[in-house]
Amino acid sequence: MLVNPISETNQISAMIEWLASFGKTESGGVTRLLYTPAWKEAQQALKAKMEEEGLQTYFDSVGNLFGRLQGTENSGTILTGSHIDTVAEGGKYDGAYGIIAGFIAVTRLFRKYGAPKKTIEIVSLCEEEGSRFPLTFWGSKNICGIYNLNVAKKIQDTDGIAFLDAMRASGFDPQHYTPPVRPDVKKFVELHIEQGMVLEKNEKAIGVVTHIVGQRRYTVRIKGESNHAGTTPMQLRKDAVSAAAEFISYLTRKAKETDPRLVATVGQIDVKPNVSNVVAGEVAFSLDVRHHQSEVIEQYCEDIFAAFERDAAKMGVGVAVTKWLDAEPVELDRELAETARSIAKQQKIAFQDIVSGAGHDSQIFGPFCPTLLLFVPSQNGISHSPKEYTAIRDLETGILLLENILYKLAYE
Amino acid sequence: MLVNPISETNQISAMIEWLASFGKTESGGVTRLLYTPAWKEAQQALKAKMEEEGLQTYFDSVGNLFGRLQGTENSGTILTGSHIDTVAEGGKYDGAYGIIAGFIAVTRLFRKYGAPKKTIEIVSLCEEEGSRFPLTFWGSKNICGIYNLNVAKKIQDTDGIAFLDAMRASGFDPQHYTPPVRPDVKKFVELHIEQGMVLEKNEKAIGVVTHIVGQRRYTVRIKGESNHAGTTPMQLRKDAVSAAAEFISYLTRKAKETDPRLVATVGQIDVKPNVSNVVAGEVAFSLDVRHHQSEVIEQYCEDIFAAFERDAAKMGVGVAVTKWLDAEPVELDRELAETARSIAKQQKIAFQDIVSGAGHDSQIFGPFCPTLLLFVPSQNGISHSPKEYTAIRDLETGILLLENILYKLAYE
Repeated sequence: MLVNPISETNQISAMIEWLASFGKTESGGVTRLLYTPAWKEAQQALKAKMEEEGLQTYFDSVGNLFGRLQGTENSGTILTGSHIDTVAEGGKYDGAYGIIAGFIAVTRLFRKYGAPKKTIEIVSLCEEEGSRFPLTFWGSKNICGIYNLNVAKKIQDTDGIAFLDAMRASGFDPQHYTPPVRPDVKKFVELHIEQGMVLEKNEKAIGVVTHIVGQRRYTVRIKGESNHAGTTPMQLRKDAVSAAAEFISYLTRKAKETDPRLVATVGQIDVKPNVSNVVAGEVAFSLDVRHHQSEVIEQYCEDIFAAFERDAAKMGVGVAVTKWLDAEPVELDRELAETARSIAKQQKIAFQDIVSGAGHDSQIFGPFCPTLLLFVPSQNGISHSPKEYTAIRDLETGILLLENILYKLAYE
Repeated sequence: MLVNPISETNQISAMIEWLASFGKTESGGVTRLLYTPAWKEAQQALKAKMEEEGLQTYFDSVGNLFGRLQGTENSGTILTGSHIDTVAEGGKYDGAYGIIAGFIAVTRLFRKYGAPKKTIEIVSLCEEEGSRFPLTFWGSKNICGIYNLNVAKKIQDTDGIAFLDAMRASGFDPQHYTPPVRPDVKKFVELHIEQGMVLEKNEKAIGVVTHIVGQRRYTVRIKGESNHAGTTPMQLRKDAVSAAAEFISYLTRKAKETDPRLVATVGQIDVKPNVSNVVAGEVAFSLDVRHHQSEVIEQYCEDIFAAFERDAAKMGVGVAVTKWLDAEPVELDRELAETARSIAKQQKIAFQDIVSGAGHDSQIFGPFCPTLLLFVPSQNGISHSPKEYTAIRDLETGILLLENILYKLAYE
């Protein structure tokens, strides 16, 4: 295994810090949401860096950024990269690492070997997390022809800003939208942090992802009656907060009973009027459910929503459930996975197969073209947090593997 | 009983609408919080109206507004009024009615009988609800010498605005603060809407309040660990939202089991980071507990906080409880209550004794000077809501009774 010069290891760490400076927060994390100024600055800065290395760069009509290394043959494009957006108060590696890894691997290949046979493009996907608007994979779904402007027309963020207005304000005018589909893309390779504890526990440097879990996200809205906290007897209340508490306790318990690999999360709660001396009249909460088998998700959701309806009737409140994300489990390309394993073996990199509990752009590309997703370890499994961390040695191992894989796919 | 001319009934209804215009919201409610522009405009408008009627007006150093009808004797002051602030999205009657009733009763007495023997003052108390800052009864507690600037020094609202800055910005400079205590006040009489359903159910026009419940308000803070909603197994989570849901379900159940007249409310919840695909690391919720017996409140709180500690340990989260309001139950003046009853009998007004589940400025004045609190009915018991309503006939009955009581206290 090639030992990389210190300067190259420094390059990785410097680029991680550099990209994290766009949207840096007081707690040392990163908040870089779709179509915000920090998002735009990051994309522009990446574009400039790619151009410095001699790549052709361009944006598509939704804000995905591409850095292109033209191939000598006219035989399609090998795409590598990840997403530029973060969750609120996220870490420096989630999504960013895959873009930086692609940049470093591709520029190293270019410097060592010149132009490839097949065109290679690095992509900085505009949005994946669903952390600003109730839409996810906006970048990859547009490329794969699954989304277009229609799904975004009525969407707004929690400050009431319309999606299309935000898009326009950051320089991507909806009027100039054309579906940015890419039939030339023949393979997609993504490098990402694990965001779990398995690789670290098993002392592996690389995870070869075989499946990505299916997931559903809902908004549950409870309608009670707001009233005076002092003069309304308990038995006469239609308290949306009490009802929400009952539902949330129930769904958490039920998830644990159903399957140890099922996860169900209420991450966001919105109470109206949200004042200490007023019985709450309305509560909306988010629900995020994931498992690698559709049937398990389906049955669990059916059970809990039936229970909500029954309990709501007893409590005299109304309940309405809206689903806004529904992603099927995805199995990734077996041949590419095998390529990754054999190169890792050759390079004496410790690896294992793994299932991803997080959604990734790879699950969108998966049905569209042969796709490979590789993980590097996350310290303590922490992600979506300023404490997110991966050791530089592991970051470097991932880039080395990616470089070798891209060589095989585009130069051989 | 004097039948009031139509013009006087119109006056009440016109004043209710007029005062409600300061801080009117889209839903038809009122949001008029301490030291905001709407609050200031309302006070200035009231001041002008009082001056038109020949009253001397002045503000004390915290923003309580007084309209004074000088007595011929030098034998102290009879004070009547209520609070000018509202909850967010409150109604038009809560607090406002007591100020308007005082204004109408006093100006009628002045027009009919000239100057009283004892000085009468109408007060528009600056703050009572605790709806902007975590402080309540700021107006009455300053008058009664219970609060001064010290309690407000470190307080801020949920937008991070410091109490003293807001006070200064609305024209009440903390530098010029002097304790606005009033040893001249001999009696306090407050007219207020019931904010409950009892008078309406019993077809009574007036409630003579014998006791005001004790109440406590807490902030409960739960500290877990924010993490990825997809890759963090349920059994390894320290989910602050799940913990909050368990605590809230428990305390609601426990309140119902303890005593049918105990009320416990979680009205406000704040989740961090409050994003759908992140397990919540922190939750803070408010808890409001009320009963007319201190021992009942004490025991209930002891029990639930002990349960929170035990459950928190099991769930691997931290819990911290801070009390920020603690008001003892208050029994009001028996002689004044008897005066009200006998005048109501004379005037053939249907009345009953009642306990108040809501806090009122009367509970602050109660230990300070003989205090009388009278209720008029609330339609469907609704309050703290744009739907808050009291029939004009009931508003008028209250004013008539107040007028007669003030006559007895100040003119005889």
